[in-house]
Order: sequence, then structure tokens, then C-alpha cells
Amino acid sequence: MSGHYRQDGHVLCFGELLLRLSAPRGELLLQSPALHTCIGGAEANVAVSLARFGHEVAMAGVLPDNPLGHAARDALRGHGVDTRPLVFQPGRMGLYFLTPGAVQRPAEIVYDRAGSAFAQYDPTRYDWPALLRGASLLHLSGVTPALGGRAAQAALAAARAACELGVPVSFDGNYRASLWAAQGQDGAAVLAELMRHVDLAFAGQRDIALLLGRPELADVERQTQAVAAAFQAFPRLRHLACTVRVQHGVERHELSAQLHTRDASLATAARTMDGIVDRIGAGDAFAAGLLHGLRRRWPAARALEFALAAATVKHAIAGDFNLASEAQVLAADNGGLDVRR
Amino acid sequence: MSGHYRQDGHVLCFGELLLRLSAPRGELLLQSPALHTCIGGAEANVAVSLARFGHEVAMAGVLPDNPLGHAARDALRGHGVDTRPLVFQPGRMGLYFLTPGAVQRPAEIVYDRAGSAFAQYDPTRYDWPALLRGASLLHLSGVTPALGGRAAQAALAAARAACELGVPVSFDGNYRASLWAAQGQDGAAVLAELMRHVDLAFAGQRDIALLLGRPELADVERQTQAVAAAFQAFPRLRHLACTVRVQHGVERHELSAQLHTRDASLATAARTMDGIVDRIGAGDAFAAGLLHGLRRRWPAARALEFALAAATVKHAIAGDFNLASEAQVLAADNGGLDVRR
Amino acid sequence: MSGHYRQDGHVLCFGELLLRLSAPRGELLLQSPALHTCIGGAEANVAVSLARFGHEVAMAGVLPDNPLGHAARDALRGHGVDTRPLVFQPGRMGLYFLTPGAVQRPAEIVYDRAGSAFAQYDPTRYDWPALLRGASLLHLSGVTPALGGRAAQAALAAARAACELGVPVSFDGNYRASLWAAQGQDGAAVLAELMRHVDLAFAGQRDIALLLGRPELADVERQTQAVAAAFQAFPRLRHLACTVRVQHGVERHELSAQLHTRDASLATAARTMDGIVDRIGAGDAFAAGLLHGLRRRWPAARALEFALAAATVKHAIAGDFNLASEAQVLAADNGGLDVRR
Amino acid sequence: MSGHYRQDGHVLCFGELLLRLSAPRGELLLQSPALHTCIGGAEANVAVSLARFGHEVAMAGVLPDNPLGHAARDALRGHGVDTRPLVFQPGRMGLYFLTPGAVQRPAEIVYDRAGSAFAQYDPTRYDWPALLRGASLLHLSGVTPALGGRAAQAALAAARAACELGVPVSFDGNYRASLWAAQGQDGAAVLAELMRHVDLAFAGQRDIALLLGRPELADVERQTQAVAAAFQAFPRLRHLACTVRVQHGVERHELSAQLHTRDASLATAARTMDGIVDRIGAGDAFAAGLLHGLRRRWPAARALEFALAAATVKHAIAGDFNLASEAQVLAADNGGLDVRR
Amino acid sequence: MSGHYRQDGHVLCFGELLLRLSAPRGELLLQSPALHTCIGGAEANVAVSLARFGHEVAMAGVLPDNPLGHAARDALRGHGVDTRPLVFQPGRMGLYFLTPGAVQRPAEIVYDRAGSAFAQYDPTRYDWPALLRGASLLHLSGVTPALGGRAAQAALAAARAACELGVPVSFDGNYRASLWAAQGQDGAAVLAELMRHVDLAFAGQRDIALLLGRPELADVERQTQAVAAAFQAFPRLRHLACTVRVQHGVERHELSAQLHTRDASLATAARTMDGIVDRIGAGDAFAAGLLHGLRRRWPAARALEFALAAATVKHAIAGDFNLASEAQVLAADNGGLDVRR
Amino acid sequence: MSGHYRQDGHVLCFGELLLRLSAPRGELLLQSPALHTCIGGAEANVAVSLARFGHEVAMAGVLPDNPLGHAARDALRGHGVDTRPLVFQPGRMGLYFLTPGAVQRPAEIVYDRAGSAFAQYDPTRYDWPALLRGASLLHLSGVTPALGGRAAQAALAAARAACELGVPVSFDGNYRASLWAAQGQDGAAVLAELMRHVDLAFAGQRDIALLLGRPELADVERQTQAVAAAFQAFPRLRHLACTVRVQHGVERHELSAQLHTRDASLATAARTMDGIVDRIGAGDAFAAGLLHGLRRRWPAARALEFALAAATVKHAIAGDFNLASEAQVLAADNGGLDVRR
Repeated sequence: MSGHYRQDGHVLCFGELLLRLSAPRGELLLQSPALHTCIGGAEANVAVSLARFGHEVAMAGVLPDNPLGHAARDALRGHGVDTRPLVFQPGRMGLYFLTPGAVQRPAEIVYDRAGSAFAQYDPTRYDWPALLRGASLLHLSGVTPALGGRAAQAALAAARAACELGVPVSFDGNYRASLWAAQGQDGAAVLAELMRHVDLAFAGQRDIALLLGRPELADVERQTQAVAAAFQAFPRLRHLACTVRVQHGVERHELSAQLHTRDASLATAARTMDGIVDRIGAGDAFAAGLLHGLRRRWPAARALEFALAAATVKHAIAGDFNLASEAQVLAADNGGLDVRR
Repeated sequence: MSGHYRQDGHVLCFGELLLRLSAPRGELLLQSPALHTCIGGAEANVAVSLARFGHEVAMAGVLPDNPLGHAARDALRGHGVDTRPLVFQPGRMGLYFLTPGAVQRPAEIVYDRAGSAFAQYDPTRYDWPALLRGASLLHLSGVTPALGGRAAQAALAAARAACELGVPVSFDGNYRASLWAAQGQDGAAVLAELMRHVDLAFAGQRDIALLLGRPELADVERQTQAVAAAFQAFPRLRHLACTVRVQHGVERHELSAQLHTRDASLATAARTMDGIVDRIGAGDAFAAGLLHGLRRRWPAARALEFALAAATVKHAIAGDFNLASEAQVLAADNGGLDVRR
Repeated sequence: MSGHYRQDGHVLCFGELLLRLSAPRGELLLQSPALHTCIGGAEANVAVSLARFGHEVAMAGVLPDNPLGHAARDALRGHGVDTRPLVFQPGRMGLYFLTPGAVQRPAEIVYDRAGSAFAQYDPTRYDWPALLRGASLLHLSGVTPALGGRAAQAALAAARAACELGVPVSFDGNYRASLWAAQGQDGAAVLAELMRHVDLAFAGQRDIALLLGRPELADVERQTQAVAAAFQAFPRLRHLACTVRVQHGVERHELSAQLHTRDASLATAARTMDGIVDRIGAGDAFAAGLLHGLRRRWPAARALEFALAAATVKHAIAGDFNLASEAQVLAADNGGLDVRR
Repeated sequence: MSGHYRQDGHVLCFGELLLRLSAPRGELLLQSPALHTCIGGAEANVAVSLARFGHEVAMAGVLPDNPLGHAARDALRGHGVDTRPLVFQPGRMGLYFLTPGAVQRPAEIVYDRAGSAFAQYDPTRYDWPALLRGASLLHLSGVTPALGGRAAQAALAAARAACELGVPVSFDGNYRASLWAAQGQDGAAVLAELMRHVDLAFAGQRDIALLLGRPELADVERQTQAVAAAFQAFPRLRHLACTVRVQHGVERHELSAQLHTRDASLATAARTMDGIVDRIGAGDAFAAGLLHGLRRRWPAARALEFALAAATVKHAIAGDFNLASEAQVLAADNGGLDVRR
Repeated sequence: MSGHYRQDGHVLCFGELLLRLSAPRGELLLQSPALHTCIGGAEANVAVSLARFGHEVAMAGVLPDNPLGHAARDALRGHGVDTRPLVFQPGRMGLYFLTPGAVQRPAEIVYDRAGSAFAQYDPTRYDWPALLRGASLLHLSGVTPALGGRAAQAALAAARAACELGVPVSFDGNYRASLWAAQGQDGAAVLAELMRHVDLAFAGQRDIALLLGRPELADVERQTQAVAAAFQAFPRLRHLACTVRVQHGVERHELSAQLHTRDASLATAARTMDGIVDRIGAGDAFAAGLLHGLRRRWPAARALEFALAAATVKHAIAGDFNLASEAQVLAADNGGLDVRR
Repeated sequence: MSGHYRQDGHVLCFGELLLRLSAPRGELLLQSPALHTCIGGAEANVAVSLARFGHEVAMAGVLPDNPLGHAARDALRGHGVDTRPLVFQPGRMGLYFLTPGAVQRPAEIVYDRAGSAFAQYDPTRYDWPALLRGASLLHLSGVTPALGGRAAQAALAAARAACELGVPVSFDGNYRASLWAAQGQDGAAVLAELMRHVDLAFAGQRDIALLLGRPELADVERQTQAVAAAFQAFPRLRHLACTVRVQHGVERHELSAQLHTRDASLATAARTMDGIVDRIGAGDAFAAGLLHGLRRRWPAARALEFALAAATVKHAIAGDFNLASEAQVLAADNGGLDVRR
């Protein structure tokens, strides 16, 4: 199942970098006069994790030419991502404020990314053939088109250029209702157009139903039908992957994963996660884990288990990024949970 | 079941404000040279939560006229409580030192509230008719009379004045053996006298047994009998509510709730709480939640579920106060446990 | 079962003190520019816990004559350990860097203790008869001989002197493969030689198998056989104790304990630990708990339950040391898990 | 000189509240992953300080209806400001990022307040006669009109309404080139129009020169001329005050103050400030200090010394607000610099 | 001048241990929800510093038998003080809250030590002959008698016993008006009675004037007269020492020192201190420094310079204690101010 | 004076990276259980500062293949340094513990770098021609040869290779007596041999005297003679630069700078620095500043002023690195010390 992806060449990720500002654990936002910061963003999270796994990765996008934008770049290049494609412009940094959840109080995000340098950048100024030179994969997410018409145009142009240049495209749906709501765009139509250029999609059943405008496909009994419909609607699509999450409490989840091709379907057992540290970016960690396995040409089942383990490990690391190496992802599987000396 | 309480008018809470000084999680007291602080107090906790739920609330009591007392007032008024009834006097602030528990090591409190400005204030100086003007509820707790004769006298005078003025009285038993022990007062007698003025009491079976001097009523098989005995002993009483807590570990509890009237009894299912952040003030959060529902004239079952949800959310917030809004209390019930964006 | 150990006289612990440098919870090492520090060491952990339980305890060993070494001494004597036998020498402090684990990401330790002042000290300079004067117990661990030939020689000399002077020896196996690996010593042979002088050994089935060079004894079905083999191989041995740990997640374990004599075997029920704060030093806390019970001449079953409770409480305290008093160890058993006021 | 201002009635401050996010001392922005937060804003700073000095103060303006906006309101009301006039709207919170300076590295501010709920609010929706009911002073600053046409319109409408209602207006120039630059408004014209309604202006020589479009008035030798020109240009103006700052290093300044009426001029001696903690908001603290003295009908010289002392004390308090009471402002003058017990 | 004091034997310090709770630098008390803690107390500060200088020191006094009292003991014994003479009793810990000053805002202390276990201890229960066995110096301070009649009685009994046993007494006046004010004792009379037993007093001109009830002796021109009067009034007195402090700002002082005998007077040059970290305990550090020099039988001038250097170094160390070793006190004098590698 | 250095090509820095562990300001080492960390090293400090000024910079050296080594690499590449030449080996990380100074208590460093992966690396394994390909400058420091024979050999081989390839060499003396003392090498001879390959040396008068074995040249009156002797002894030398530091207190210094060629000498005025945050790395910041100016072909006086300004700014930034951009270095000179908005 894992043919088609190559190890040579680098991965190009395109998307917005965000500054996250989080309240301390167990507190509401500004309950104490302190915020923890980190850099994140759906595509950047994938970029950092792939770099930590040993891939050549470059990040394209736009940052404000101020200390916040510079710090975002520094964070990425510190983790080994090639940040030379990033452009610096006047404007503001996209932000989000996170109130971590606990017990049965869910986490809350206040987005403050409207009008960011990324969202306002003229989409015709990206030179996609140049940016994709030497790349063997382009990674996009559904967050970018949700930021507005300019960003949507840029994402679509990137996907088209990749298709023309024979570079496979991976795409994480990442449907964020609150972002689309603010834009007045027809999210499903925009995402569906993007999906026409995608080889590997990270999307669950609910995402498929939304994309295809067929709400009945979200019915848990129709999963096979939903997957089939997706493959039918998007002829370029080769892989469809997702995680399934069951939440017993804010810090206690079960996670399993699925991978579908036109011919076959794989599903893992569920892993229980207790004492979750940070759930943000787990989907991106899963995506990076699967891309790692596919690029390493591991058997699909091994790639999927690794992707799930990567997502699991992300829940144990503060911040948006999965900073674990391949060995650290495998540690629990290989040697148990006790202190490693 | 929820008639009788009004939304117009404000709630008057009367009691002592305390400065809490807590060790960091996972440490014994002064293991590190740092203490987290917050303001609390059984009645103040109710006041803040009701204010967060949108009620007009005023706080009466006495604070030392020094930076600690001023900070306590500022905390309350920051959360929207009317602090003008608070009196500032020479004297000391009531303190308590908290060592949070973990795993199977229970939390420990060292009280240091003897001789506080509140406890030493001349009870005849309170002008209850003036303080209760415009109030539609008076909230007291069993902590206040446990602070000594002066405070007990003040609480009783407040309850009597409320009865005379037709202001309903709610009362949270909050039996603290260590406080009564230091006073040489007959706790049961004092509390029983108070209960004669109470419309809504927060008291469990064990509290009833203590109040009535009938230890056999604490037997879990005699719950119905205990409730009946309470309603019989206190003819003014209309509502009797409590939570039931089962502890599997210091950070893993189950909580359910009960509400009794003379005619009917309601009980909720238990909610499991994992990864508890702060258990202090959960009973006060429950009281505020129930008062909120009753004042909003919600059906009793809805009010009780809300009160339980409020208590649950409190376990997820550091400090004595339940700072959650009505929407935040309902979040887990309405939309699940995942990150809210 | 608990005869033989005396309360009069002090306990002498001999071993290396370490400075631990830990990342914050939920972060990888140096993810943030901050490290928490504490002092630890297998034998020092036992010393501190015994002192907290009310025993006279002295610590022998070598520290660098610099601020790190002085801070290590201060930590111990702050907890009531007699640090006068500690020697200060030029050289470096043994360090270890700890990345705490979470969820299913195991904790990781990077040791940086090679070439420490302790490891390089001339073993002939210890005056064991003087150091053991007045002692009623000598406690050693398998970490010390693993630090190299000089330390191994010192540990052996200490054990021999104790035997000659009629001072019982307790010994915690503490097999650390990564330490022995760096030394080129035959660990099993060195440890077996030590075991010949030991009265009370803390060692599990796997340790026995290693010590005796009989891997088949690690088979879970042969536990009785392994215990018997140990008693046969080491005629001086009177007590053999260990904990058994089952890990459901990094912060959720079950722990039970066993105590064997030549005549009898005891085993406790398992205790579940949720929300573990710090697992390091739990074995040492167990050892100190058992020594406490034996020195207090408690019945063996009571001593073993106390030892297990002590190990459990250690999981709820940050740092290497179990700082709990006897009363705090017993708190959960005696009074439940709720806040103690 | 201090006639005209009244103690009865409250002060109404109108302006934007900001969330400040500061790097730790001695670090560049995001050098560490932590930000300290506080609430500020030129007019809110005056409001809080006046409330701390014992005045009735209310704050008008617009905040986003989200946790950041709520926290800003809570901060103000915690310090005793009446926040009922504040309006909550969809939109974003104005932010600024502060890198504190040190030695000879000046502090840097990155503003991120464009498009805030305050700046975008329809100016016709303020009901100034209602908001000014019972007020005896309106305080505005030059920051508000610099936020854009809507905010400028609102400030002007407020000033006009105050004049019509006979409420004196105080105004702090607060010229921020970077804010005006982003607006394309003619700052001088807008401010001059505002100044026509002002009784008490906080403006230095450079501000006067800008306002009047007469750059030559900034010449240090023409101070008398500049003051005279201001009184001539703005017939309503009664008081003109400013501080003069000399900076020997980022944390070592000298500060003096001036107060001018049409008849007289006062100047204080300079005060040396060493080890400055936080210079932000010192001008607002000065304004509040002078307003305090004038409202208390102190002699002008006493009011001016107090205002300077207040500005000085602000340099010793972290955050935008001068939280000191009148007694704390006077402490250094009255009793020296040593520890007060 | 330094005859009379011996190195053999230990120093006994008697007084109350306090828990200090400090706001972060640059903040008012409880401006942030965090307090730094340390242990202190006038006599304990001397004890710790002498122990750091290499003397045998024991601490007598009373502590509450709770975690705060235990932590106070642990702090002292961690620094090498013999804490076995400390008695544990029911009761409360003496506290003080510190708001550090800055720039021209002086630090403020809120004492909360009334009713402490120390102050309430029955003075007849101290067995002074036993406590003084083996001691070669008794150190007391004027804080103790200011705590009330019981403490005053205890201090006087200690001094008398020392005189009878031929143990020299050193005494630091430490006049705290706010403490005496609360007691209704005649401070001067009590202190004067104590002074009759003192060999070495730390007292400035103002203290002498107060002690002798001769306010005119505080006149700076009458210093010689004041010193002479002290020696005349107190025939046992051999040494009279003090520091002289000039404050240019809260963090910028000059400090010099004086030592008087019946025959001679010494005075040092002033040392300038910039960027003061913590001024509390500087007088105690001076006392310990002088006692160190006298016990080491250094020439008086050397002892006095060392004492001043010790006081200076204390200003560079957070907390009440001067933790510096003799070498660290001498570092600036011996090798300059640059980084020592 | 600034000919000879080129902007094209990159700068290669060679040296050891260290992990610094610092106590909080105002505390002794381990007074609190927390250490701040940063990465540093004489040559890495130069590398980071040059990268921040916009130069292409690569870092060569050896790091341990563990989380500490990886974090050191990440820090450098985060700041824009090309870390591909760094080699990862088994072994330990070089550490140093810093106790920051204050007032008149000097900072103290405890080095713990013996036996590091860098110091133990086989010097013949560096491929200097490959490492220097494309470089236009090699930067070394005197710290490297002081680490032992292997490191000294490596530094010398690097310098020789650079000479052969026509790459200019800059060299910072950085004489650390404590490091040489531990090695038993003849420091002066080793350094003098290195100096024979150097074009630009950072060395003061005292360094010259040591290098040439002529102590009399350290006499402040013989500066001209010392400079001349250096140029005579080292025929390749073109530039000799140094700073001159006068310390009035630990946080209050004056700094000036000198630059000498064979033909001319330049000296700046002194700059006063108050409230110094971190003095470590100031010499490296000076070196980077001068290299920046020379590579930009600025007039020598401008380059020297910039270098001094860079050194000054470093004192205002925590950590070893000067993270300021060119604009930030110039900020105080261009626009004054007040907040930049």
C-alpha cells in the first residue's frame, strides 16, 4: 500500500505559522498574569515532526517582519526545518489563545488571526515552480483556505503546480467551523476543488460527508460507503487516513487509526492515553508519522501503527509540535513504560 | 420544586475571606520556596460563582485594613461581587496553608485563622436590616459559627434578621471538626439553632446525624429516615441538598448529587472526574450552582444537574473559586470534551 | 519474621549523592530553558526517608568541594541526616538529567556521573571501623559497585567490615545496565560477592537470576525456586524483599510487595496509583519503609504494608526523596483520600 | 491655581483597554517561552490610579466579548473602577508586546491593536449625556483619536458633550507617531480640534509645537513662548502640565514636572530614579496624581509634587497601572527609603 | 580590642524563627498570585551566618509542631546550625509579609507574628544552664523582648544565666517600634535591663538615646557623648558596634561601620552598594561578621572590615540569611568584581 | 584600516559548545531548586552574533550524541548558524554552573567540562580543507587549546589550514587560568604558536604580556610598547583589538574599546552601563561586532564604535549570546534610551 512516495527530495509544507499563548494548566485564561508561548500551525507541525524524523523539510508561507515573525522562523529552523522559503512582510502575526482543559472542562481556543500577514499576502506573488523545485511531496491543510480568499487561492495554486510537476500532494482536512464561519466562503466547494489534486488525504467520515455535501455519510454505519464515495469523487486520491478518538475525560482518551486505499483498509487497535499533557497538534503528528512511514516505504500496517504511536506521543509533549524522534516514538512499544536509563 | 426563590434583588453572602497559600503540585509544604496564593472562603466562593453566573451579589464581613485585606476585597470585586458591605478593621487576615495531594497522598490544610479581624469583630456592630436591604437571599455557612462565639452570634443575628425581613436563608453545613475543636463550643447546638432559620440547607446524612445528635442516622441504610428527621426538626426548611463523593485516588473521584424537598427526592447519576486540579471549593460551587438554578426557576432536575456540573467544573480550576460562566459549566454536557475552537 | 534488627544505634548509608536536573512536566529536555534540581542517590534516598521516620542516620561518601557538593550535604542535613562522615574532595559532582515521561512516553535519564569525586576516591582511605562505630545497620546498593573498581572495592570493604563488627547489612540490588556497561566489570560476580555479606536484600526475581547467572530463574513460574536459590546461594541472607510493578500508562501503575525469609513468604495486595508525580526513588522509599518497620520490630506483615504505602506515597512527591513522615505515609490508609484539615 | 475641579461626582475615563504581553526582564521577545501579562491603556491607567487614590471613577469604552475582554474588565473593577459603562462587542482585543529594555538597550513595543473592537465601534452608539451623568471630570487621551476615524469621532463627541454639560475635560496628548502613521489622518488637526474643549492638558513643549504646527516652538529656549502660544490657541485651557525626563541609562532617569496656568508657572526639582522597574504608564500616573491634587483642592505646588511622586512610584511597580495608594506615594517623602515595618 | 571571645565552644542563639512571604520584585503584595518564602529571624540570621563561617552554632527557641515549624528547623539545620535545642509546641508560626521596594518606593513589612508558639511559651520551661552548657557565647536581640512579657522574661533569664555561667552575651538592639507598640511594655526599661548583662552590643546612636531615655544623645554631633554614656550606663559592656547607612535610592546605599570599646573607636570608610537585592538581615550579617572576627581573634580593624563586607554581601543575596562563606565575603576585596572562574 | 576581510563566503567558527546552568538573580547556586539554562561557548557566541547581523556562519566542533548535544545544535541553528559541520559522538556535554553576582558579590563559575566529547575527539579526524571550503574567515579562541592537547592540536591544525588556503584567521585570546591550570600545558607557548597564524587578534595588554612571557608589558604605562611588541612577534597580525573595563560594582561598569594596526591606533570613549543583566559573552559580542564592521568594510572608527555598542547591548541580554540585530545594537545611539514604539 505504501508505494508512490519517495525519500529523495524534500517535503514542502505551506501554511500559516501561529503564535500560541496558553494559560497554565488548571487555570482559565488570564487567571494568572502569565502565558506560555509556542509556535504552531497545522502544516508547520507536520514540517517539524518530519524534520525530527530525519526528512529534509522546507516551510513556505508569510510572516510579519517583526520580532514575533522572526521568533516563529527561529523555532522552525531550530527544529531543522529549512525556513528560507518563508517571506517576511509588514503586518501582524496570527495568534491563538489557549485555555487548557481539565477533568470535564474542555479546552478553549480564542483565535486572533484575522488580518494576518499570511492571510493578506497577494497569492500571485508565490512562485510555485521555484518553491517546489526538488520537492518530492507537498503538504497542505484545510486551515489555509479557511483563512480567506487570498489564502484559498494560494493553496489551490500550490496544489495545481504540484500536480503539474508530478509532486504528490498530501492534505489534512482540518475543518475548523469557526474559521470558515468568519469568511463567508463555501468551505465544502473550496476544499473539494483542492481534493481533486490530492494523493493522500487525512479526513474522517464526517469530513467526507461535509466535502461531498452528503450528510448521511457521517452515519457511523456507512463508513465503507463514505470511503468509497471519497475515492470515487476524487480520482487522484490514493490514500485516505484518519484517527478515531473516544474521550472519557479531558485528559483520558482512546485513539485508534485507519488507512484506506482503493483496494484495502487497515485499522489499528485503540491505545488508551491517561494524563494527557497537550492534545493540540496530535492530528498533525499522526499525519507526519504516516508520511514518515510511507516515505520510508514501510509496510502500510507498520506505517499506520507508527503514525498512531506518534499521535500518542504528541499527547505527552507540551506545545503544538511533536518533538519526538523516531526512537522516542517507538520507545513505549519497544521497551515498556518505565524510566529509560 | 424550585419555587420560592426570586431573581430580583441581590444575594448577600456573609462570612470570612481567607488567604490561601498553596505548595506547588506534587510537593510538600515549603519543599520549594514558593507558594501560590488565592482568596477563598466558603461564603465568598458562593458569592463569586453566583456573580459569574450573572447574579447581583454582595459580600458582608470584616477584613484587616492592610494589603492582605485589600487584596481580598480586590479579588472579589474583580469577579463582580459588590464589596461595599465589607468592613476594614485593625487585625490579622485569616490564612490557610494547603499542601495539595496526589496519587494516594491526601491534601493537607494547616489553618492559621485564629484571632482574625473577622473572628474578633464585635457582632453587635453589624446592621443587618441595612445589609439585607434589597436582598432576596442570604447565604451563610457552618464555618462562621465555628470561628468562635462572636462569629456565631453574628451569623445567628443575620439569620434571624433575614427571617424577620422575609429574606430566604441558604446555609451550607461545612462541618470542620478542627475548627470547632479549638473553640470549646457545642457545635451541634449552635448549628441546630441556625438551621431553624434556614430555607435551603446543604447538608449530607452525616451532617444531619451530627446536627440532630443522632449518630445512627449516619448509617447509609437510613438515608430516607435522616432526611425526614431533618425536615421534621427544622420546620422552616424547604430544600435539602448534598453531593456524594467516592474517591478512587486523590485525583480521581466520582460525584453525584441529591436534592430533597418535603415531597420529593431527586438524585443524579455519578460523574467520573480524572486528573482533578483542585478539589477545594467544590461544595461551594455546587451550592452556587443550585442557587443559580433555583433563582432562575429552572426545573429542579435541571438545577440539580447544573449544580453537579458546576461542582465538577470546579475540580478543573485552580483556586477556591469556581470562575466558570454558565456556558462554561454546560460546555462538556452540550458539546463534548474536545477542544472548543 | 522481623527479629534481628535493632532500634538503638544509627543507620549508616554509603553511596554517591547525585544532582538531578529535570525538565518540566510534559516537556522534553531543554525544550524550555529551565531545569528543576534536587539531590538524590539510591542510598541517600534511604537515609533521608529513615531520618524522616525518626531514625538516627548518617551518610558516608565523597562529594566535590564546590558549591554543588556543599548543596548536596545541606540537603541531607536539612532532612536530619548526620553528614559528618561525608568527605569533600576536588573533582566533579555526579549528575543526571531527567526528562519526565507522560501518557505513553517513558521518562528518560541521561547519566553524567563518570569521573565523579566519589568514583575516583581512593577506597583505602575509608576507615570503616570508625565509620561503623555505633551503627546498628549498614545500607548499600548495587549502584555503587557499578560506578567502577574503586567504588566496588569500597562497597565490599564496607560490607566486610560490617560483618566483622556484627552490624547487619541491607542491600538494594538496583541493577542499572547502562552503568555496568560503561565499566567493563563483571557485574554479577561483583554483586554476588557483596551479597555474601548481606542480611536483608532488596531484589526481585530478575535480579536473582542475574546474580546467580541462571536466566531461567527469571521465568515468572519459577518464583519460589528463585527465592530458594537465593537463600541457598547466600547463607547469611535472612530477608529478601521486592516490589512488583504493573504499568498501565506512564502515570498509572499498580504496585504490590513481597517479603521472603527462609521460612515464610508474604505478599500484599496491589495498590493502584493514578496521576503519578515522580516515580524515581520509589524503590528506595520501599527499602526505607521496610527497614523502618523491621527496626521498630513491627510484625512482618505490618512492616511490609508500611513499606508498600511508603513506596506509594513517594510517587506523590517530586524529587528523589520520600519526605513523608510516618503519619503521612499512613494517612491514606487511616483516614481516606480527602483533604485533611 | 487649583480651583475649578470638584471632588463630588465621578471621573469618567474613555479609551481603549489593552492587553500587554511582556518578555521577562533582560530577555528579547520570545527568547523564553513565557510572557507576563497585564491590562493597560492610557486612560485606564489614569482611572485605576484615581480609584486607588479614593476617587469614584468609571471607565467607558468597548471590549471584545471574549475571555480577554472579560479579563480586562475584571482587572479594572478589581482596582475599584466602575466598569458598567464598558460595552462588549464581537471583535478582537487590542494587544501590545513589550520587550523591556536594560542598560543601554531601549525597551521596544510591538503594537497589535489594529481592527480592535474598540477601534471599529460605531461612534454614534455612545450616549454621551447618559455616560456623563453625575461626572465631574472627563479624561481623554491622544491615543484614542490616533486609532482611526471612528475612535477620533467618538473622542471628539465626548469632549463636546462634556463642554455642553459643563463637565471639565482633561486630556493627555500621548502623541504616538507609530499609531498616527498607520491611519493617514492629520494628527495635529484632530488633536487641535480636541484641545479646543480641554480644561487641563498634559502636553510638553514638543507636543505643543506639533499641535500648533509650529516646529520652532520645540526649541528648548522657547518654552515660555510655547506655553503662551498654547494658552492663546486654546481659550478654554486652564492648566498645562508635563514631566521632563532625562535618561542616563534605561534604568536610571531623572524626572521633574511643570504646571502652567495663564498666570503662573511652577516647576519641581528633579528626582533621580535608579533601578527602574517599569517606565510604562508613568505619564498616566503623573496625570492621575495631578488630578488627585486638583480635585482635593491642594495648593498647586503640593499637587504638582504629589503628581511627580506618583510618577516616580510608578517606575517602581510592574505593569501599566500605578497601584499605589496616596500613602504609598508619599512614603518616600515622609519617612525615607528604608524598609517600613 | 578583640580579646575576651573564645573559639572553642559553640554559640547559642535564642529567638523566634519567622516565615517570610515576599512579593516578586517590582510588585505590590499579592499583585501576582505568588509569594517567595524563606526562613529568617534576627537571631537565626546570626546563627546561620556564623555556621557558614565555620562556627559551631546552636539555636534555641520554640516552633509550632506543624509543617511550617518543621520547615523552619530544616532550613537552619541545612545550613549547619544545631537545632536540637528547638522545642516544638502546638500553636502558630510567626510570619511576615514583605513587599520589596524599588526606585524610591520603600519596602513594606506586614508583621503577622502575634500569638506565635514562641511568644506564648512559658518562660520558666527553658532550662538555661542546660542550654548554655558548652557555649562560649550567647546571642540575643531586642526583637525577642518586644514580642511580649513572656518572651522578655525568657530573654532576660537567658542573659542572667549566661552571666552567672561566665558566658559572654552579645545583643543586637533591633528596635522595632511597631512590635513594642503592640505590647504596652516600656521598651526602653526592658532593653536597658537586658543591656546590663551584655558584653557586646550592636546599637547605634539613636538606640542609645532610646535606651537611656536621653533623646538629645541622638543628635549627630553628640556621638562621642552617646558612646561614653552607654559605656557608663552599662558597666559590663566591652564592645559597641553599629553600621551607618545612607540611602540614595531603595537599591543604592552607602554603608560604613563603627566599633567602640572603652578605650578606642574605629570607623571604616563607606562602601557603595548598587543594585541591592535584599536589604533584610544586613544588620544580622554585620553582627555575625564581627562575632566571627572577634572569635577568630583578628585585629579589631580587620574584624570590623570583615563585618562590613559581610553586611555588604548580604545585600546581594535574596532571603534573610547571609549564606556566604568567609571566602565569598572576602572575594570582592581580594580579587575584584569580575566573574570568578 | 578595515581592508582585507571579505563579505562573500561564510565565517567558520570552531570551538566547544557548552550548556550553562545559572542560579536565579540574587541567589547562590542551588539556593532555590531551579536553574536557568542556555547554550554558549566563546566561538559559538561569535557565530550567533554574526548570524544575527546577517552573515553566513557555520559552526564546527563536536557534541555528545544525546539530548543535550542535540539541544545545543538546535539553539545554534535556531539563530541561523549552519550546524552541519558539527559532529555527534558518544561522550558528555561540557557544562558550566553560573552564580550571577550582585552589588559587590562577584559572579562565580564552576566549570564542569573535563572529559567532554569535544575535548576527547581525535584531532586528526577533522578535515579542515573541506570544512574551510567557501569560508572567508576562520574564528578561533584561546579557550579551545586550553581544553587539552587534543583540542589544542585541532585548533592549530585549523589555523594552519586556513593560512594555507588564504583564509584570514581571527582569534580571541580568552585566557582562562583555571582551564590551563588543569591541563599541565604551557599555555603561553601554545597560544603564541597559534598567534603566528592570526590576522586579527582580540587581546589586551595583559594577554600580550602573558603570550610573550614579558610581564613588564602589563604595566599600564607601557601600552604602546606592548602593542608594538605584539606586532613584532607576530608578523602575520594585522589587527589587535580589545575592550577596557572599569567596574564600580557588579552591575555597574564602564567599557571602552581599542583597535590597533601596525600604522594606527583608535580608542573610543567609555560607555557607562548600569543595571547589567549578564556580563558573560560580552567579549565575544565585541569580537562579532568588530568582525561585522570589518566585513562590511566600514571605516575602522565606525566598526569599533559598533563593536563597543554590541558589547554594551550584550550586557542587557540574558544568556551567553548577543541576540541583537544590527538595528538593535544601534538603537540607543540613534534614537535614545526611551521606549521605542
